[in-house]
Amino acid sequence: MISDFTNNELAPVDMLIDKQGDYPEGLFELAVQTGLLGITLPQQYGGAGFDYAATAQALQIMAAGNASLAVTLEGHFKTIEQFMKYGNPELNDHYLPLATHQILAFSQTEPSGGSNPTGITTRAVKQGDNWVITGDKIMITNGGLASVYCVLAKTEDDQLAVFVVDQDMPGFSFGKREDFIGLKGTPVAEIVMDHIVVPDYHLLGQVGQGLEIGDQAHADARVLMGAVLAGIMTHELQIAVDYAKERKALTTPLYQLQVTQQKIADIAIAKQNTELLYQQAAKLKVQGQPYAEIAAMAKSYGSRSAVKVGDETLQILGGYGYSRDYPIEHLIRDARAMELAEGSIEKMNLEITKAEINK
Amino acid sequence: MISDFTNNELAPVDMLIDKQGDYPEGLFELAVQTGLLGITLPQQYGGAGFDYAATAQALQIMAAGNASLAVTLEGHFKTIEQFMKYGNPELNDHYLPLATHQILAFSQTEPSGGSNPTGITTRAVKQGDNWVITGDKIMITNGGLASVYCVLAKTEDDQLAVFVVDQDMPGFSFGKREDFIGLKGTPVAEIVMDHIVVPDYHLLGQVGQGLEIGDQAHADARVLMGAVLAGIMTHELQIAVDYAKERKALTTPLYQLQVTQQKIADIAIAKQNTELLYQQAAKLKVQGQPYAEIAAMAKSYGSRSAVKVGDETLQILGGYGYSRDYPIEHLIRDARAMELAEGSIEKMNLEITKAEINK
Amino acid sequence: MISDFTNNELAPVDMLIDKQGDYPEGLFELAVQTGLLGITLPQQYGGAGFDYAATAQALQIMAAGNASLAVTLEGHFKTIEQFMKYGNPELNDHYLPLATHQILAFSQTEPSGGSNPTGITTRAVKQGDNWVITGDKIMITNGGLASVYCVLAKTEDDQLAVFVVDQDMPGFSFGKREDFIGLKGTPVAEIVMDHIVVPDYHLLGQVGQGLEIGDQAHADARVLMGAVLAGIMTHELQIAVDYAKERKALTTPLYQLQVTQQKIADIAIAKQNTELLYQQAAKLKVQGQPYAEIAAMAKSYGSRSAVKVGDETLQILGGYGYSRDYPIEHLIRDARAMELAEGSIEKMNLEITKAEINK
Amino acid sequence: MISDFTNNELAPVDMLIDKQGDYPEGLFELAVQTGLLGITLPQQYGGAGFDYAATAQALQIMAAGNASLAVTLEGHFKTIEQFMKYGNPELNDHYLPLATHQILAFSQTEPSGGSNPTGITTRAVKQGDNWVITGDKIMITNGGLASVYCVLAKTEDDQLAVFVVDQDMPGFSFGKREDFIGLKGTPVAEIVMDHIVVPDYHLLGQVGQGLEIGDQAHADARVLMGAVLAGIMTHELQIAVDYAKERKALTTPLYQLQVTQQKIADIAIAKQNTELLYQQAAKLKVQGQPYAEIAAMAKSYGSRSAVKVGDETLQILGGYGYSRDYPIEHLIRDARAMELAEGSIEKMNLEITKAEINK
Repeated sequence: MISDFTNNELAPVDMLIDKQGDYPEGLFELAVQTGLLGITLPQQYGGAGFDYAATAQALQIMAAGNASLAVTLEGHFKTIEQFMKYGNPELNDHYLPLATHQILAFSQTEPSGGSNPTGITTRAVKQGDNWVITGDKIMITNGGLASVYCVLAKTEDDQLAVFVVDQDMPGFSFGKREDFIGLKGTPVAEIVMDHIVVPDYHLLGQVGQGLEIGDQAHADARVLMGAVLAGIMTHELQIAVDYAKERKALTTPLYQLQVTQQKIADIAIAKQNTELLYQQAAKLKVQGQPYAEIAAMAKSYGSRSAVKVGDETLQILGGYGYSRDYPIEHLIRDARAMELAEGSIEKMNLEITKAEINK
Repeated sequence: MISDFTNNELAPVDMLIDKQGDYPEGLFELAVQTGLLGITLPQQYGGAGFDYAATAQALQIMAAGNASLAVTLEGHFKTIEQFMKYGNPELNDHYLPLATHQILAFSQTEPSGGSNPTGITTRAVKQGDNWVITGDKIMITNGGLASVYCVLAKTEDDQLAVFVVDQDMPGFSFGKREDFIGLKGTPVAEIVMDHIVVPDYHLLGQVGQGLEIGDQAHADARVLMGAVLAGIMTHELQIAVDYAKERKALTTPLYQLQVTQQKIADIAIAKQNTELLYQQAAKLKVQGQPYAEIAAMAKSYGSRSAVKVGDETLQILGGYGYSRDYPIEHLIRDARAMELAEGSIEKMNLEITKAEINK
Repeated sequence: MISDFTNNELAPVDMLIDKQGDYPEGLFELAVQTGLLGITLPQQYGGAGFDYAATAQALQIMAAGNASLAVTLEGHFKTIEQFMKYGNPELNDHYLPLATHQILAFSQTEPSGGSNPTGITTRAVKQGDNWVITGDKIMITNGGLASVYCVLAKTEDDQLAVFVVDQDMPGFSFGKREDFIGLKGTPVAEIVMDHIVVPDYHLLGQVGQGLEIGDQAHADARVLMGAVLAGIMTHELQIAVDYAKERKALTTPLYQLQVTQQKIADIAIAKQNTELLYQQAAKLKVQGQPYAEIAAMAKSYGSRSAVKVGDETLQILGGYGYSRDYPIEHLIRDARAMELAEGSIEKMNLEITKAEINK
Repeated sequence: MISDFTNNELAPVDMLIDKQGDYPEGLFELAVQTGLLGITLPQQYGGAGFDYAATAQALQIMAAGNASLAVTLEGHFKTIEQFMKYGNPELNDHYLPLATHQILAFSQTEPSGGSNPTGITTRAVKQGDNWVITGDKIMITNGGLASVYCVLAKTEDDQLAVFVVDQDMPGFSFGKREDFIGLKGTPVAEIVMDHIVVPDYHLLGQVGQGLEIGDQAHADARVLMGAVLAGIMTHELQIAVDYAKERKALTTPLYQLQVTQQKIADIAIAKQNTELLYQQAAKLKVQGQPYAEIAAMAKSYGSRSAVKVGDETLQILGGYGYSRDYPIEHLIRDARAMELAEGSIEKMNLEITKAEINK
């Protein structure tokens, strides 16, 4: 199913998505109809019940066709994971069945303070059985496309908590969509919350668990980003190999040149490493073992590698690689997002170091 | 003059040039009126008579404002150099006075064979006192903008020679303009020559000198590309320093963080090295000493560095760096062209090695 | 068993081995008594019958204590593999029981032609039921320590074949031991064969299979080298983490500095990738699937990484890292050998490219 | 003179110095007789009066023969500079004439606090017209070889100042010589000062100028280290070129292979950049303009490059490069010292960033 959709529907519009800066009419609806939004969702909620390893593998396959839709699903799936882990039955019974045809999003970042939790200014004030939520969130993956948003907020006693809000609620509005240089299909936008009133069961987990849930969402996202990056590198490798087989420097096929071999080996190794890293992280998660450190490695190594070996692929193609008529240049822009999203390289370094120091 | 034009006219439209993919209405004409096309041209032809070191320095200044116009001028100036060195008086008296307000271009590359001279298929056939020239040239810097083209062709006895053709000659037409990812102001296009007839004095240098003139044009271009790249890195450094001074991570200015310092030092060193390399190459040229190897170094090192440290600048800016609302991302695309133009990195490696082997 | 031997016998003499340039008196004998030489050998020959994944894992553990002995065993185990795959019963019944207490070696390289098979000058001449073997082999891992050598030779009809010779045979002598800069315990030496007469069953595999067996030995070696390199990086990571926890820059522990975190994350990721690569290669081999490409990746990526992150570890330690009183500097020298042994980086690039082109 | 000494006396013992870990008998005396210690010293003190650019160039030439002696002289020359700039006439008249045949050294680092000035524990107590100095200094270049030491100390009112002590003074003794992995000829050792009494004119500059003088000494040292590193890379390039010309892979000379060309170009560019950087820094110093930032670049870029391209040279030589019978491996160890000495890479990053921020 995943491969068919990728080959027949997604890969053919890869460059179109990049050029028009959005999904073409009907693509997202087709993804919904195909059941892609629900692959990781338990069958009780209408999903296919893939485990996380299978979910990640599906995203690698999809991303080899087009990375934007794979990242849209990554943002959706990581959010579903938090409902599954922290959601109360009332919340989950309401929202998870929707997740087969509506996108769920998770939003932490604010204008002033990056994704640093101490700087959170979004406020949640308890009023009787309800919470009133006010604040701005920026750089939300799927902002505008998603219908449901988990938002990190501070309570009156300065504890962090996550609440679920809905685009249809009074006080909810969308801000500016970012004009980012890659992943042009995946919208990244701002949401503005002006005294949104939600019932108590819209609290995800407990008051005080905000940071933990945020970290959990990061870790789950990074596993899938590793898969998306492995998919991008699968695509890069294919482009490099195809061109090096077919194109000649005088009479010698490019792949017989030492510098081309050096580049192809680099690409293949980077792809292989990223694949092994995300699969290992997913396997550990499925087994109930700690996986956050390897997930951070998958995202950190994978994103830097996909940009670097994308650039090597471009160099193999020469002037053609530099042209918008060929797909390689946009793969580099797509991959570049993931050196920044879900925690910068520097944040990954900090987390990996902490994990090693505490072993 | 150069600084004024850069600050007042060029820098303000830098992002506009990138976004609309062309010079804004009137900019090129203003450059002509300001006398920029003639700075390197001897005064006898109406130019300002800058020596090559001063010419290169002017391009660094300009490129810190916008790299496209600097590259347009680089292509023009390297061509003027070949007229000065190889042109006969009749040719030069006709064309060099035009060079103050019309762009001259130099075209070697063909569809089949890259810039490899043995694969040249453009033909020059002697007919009485004339030559008849037929063939296609692609990836010509300033193709479409330039009025005059030096073209590398093969004579009937398979010798290489350079001829000067004109866009107004019967048989001359423009082909496709490339949709390249950077240097969006600088047109790169194809020309088609269908039995263009030129008089004998349109031969630049002698029959058999085609390869030598082509190599000379490469060397002269690379000196100036080094300058353009130093200019791009001046711009990158400015962006990095400004942001690192003004932006805080919590309460600490970014420039006090070790990883930001690492990046700023990288940028500053790469810019300094490239500056010293192109200045040394220009100085050697002015002194009449061999400069081709150092020119190759300036282009090879400079282009790889400008891309690399551009990416580090983007990382300092985080999400903003990834946005089209900020200038850094297009500087990386601009610089990337110069890893390919005027000889690939691999070709530079070959030439530098040969120079070292023969020392 | 492996961990105990490593912690109690091997790790304590790691720096001693490096400094005296040989195994200390009795260490090798202790390794024999502990049964280390036979771990990969089937139980029918007196071994422990570890599968290749377990064998490789044992080498990672050992190499975290000392890489020289691990490489000595790597050379031994890869040779045992070739007996197991290609040896006839008479040959194996004679030699494999010895392999629990004597080292077997595999020798391809010759003075003139690197490891390039077309340049082989060692000759094997058939005389009745015997073969007479004459030639020189250089850079043999365990040369001088091993008793038994598989040698690649050319027959009279220019076919390549592998023969088994013995240090006790008339005509066999040892040449110079290399004064290499790392892996100081592992001898690398020349052997000289002057008309050594061996019976027909000393032919390993068939005449004409020489190249195949050589390639097979390379692939098997590279899996284990990946494990050794993962072990070296385990050691490097330990040194880096221990120092960064204990040492302060003024009052801040080093591990809280961004540049130290960057280095520790690099080391941890490189170690993790190498571990996953060799384990994947070993798993594929155990499952009877193709593993040569991933084995090449493990060696190529692993060796470059272990040198690079070893250097980062040295930088964390500062002046102490530059001193022979601390272990880190010799780990870099040890790891550096593996960028050259069992095929250079360039050879790996060629093989990986071929594998990708033919997928 | 410099070239003759280098070619006839120094280069021939380069590997001997590395292997025996010291200068051979008579070499240092010959350097004295040849006048090498005084080249940078004004003629009034018996020197040759080279300006700093010529001094630096001399060190590049020498370092291409052997880096240890060049570093010994670098430590000597940077100290002479501080006498010239800060010394009172009485001090200079006493010590500078000695500098033609005795080594002067500058010592800042202490056991506890790295080269961080706030952690200085060496104490200078005023007693009448004398100062009494007590403390330990470690990692002193030329420690043990030098006769005269400038030491950074704290006065009773916690001001930093530099004093000149002498190995013959009561209370002066040498501590441990470091067993470093490179620059084996240059001793690096500890000195112990136990209530050394010096007259007031042994104060270099003023009380409170200690930090300034220390920074000045760093900047002057780094210019010369740039030169030494350019010299090491001159040596590396020579080794790479010679081997690539003479050695064949089958029938193709190595220098015709793309990966060898890539390495040779890297080496040549790194050498060229470092040469231009140190020459620029020296020229600025001679002209009385700020040069500390470019000096930091020369040392930071130069040291990292010399290690990196040394490793590429080793890879060109293959197994021979890994052998102690060939000189390349020790050049890497020699160069590695300079990533640590006179300020770590991280310290350079800080200083370069500060310079850029304040422009």
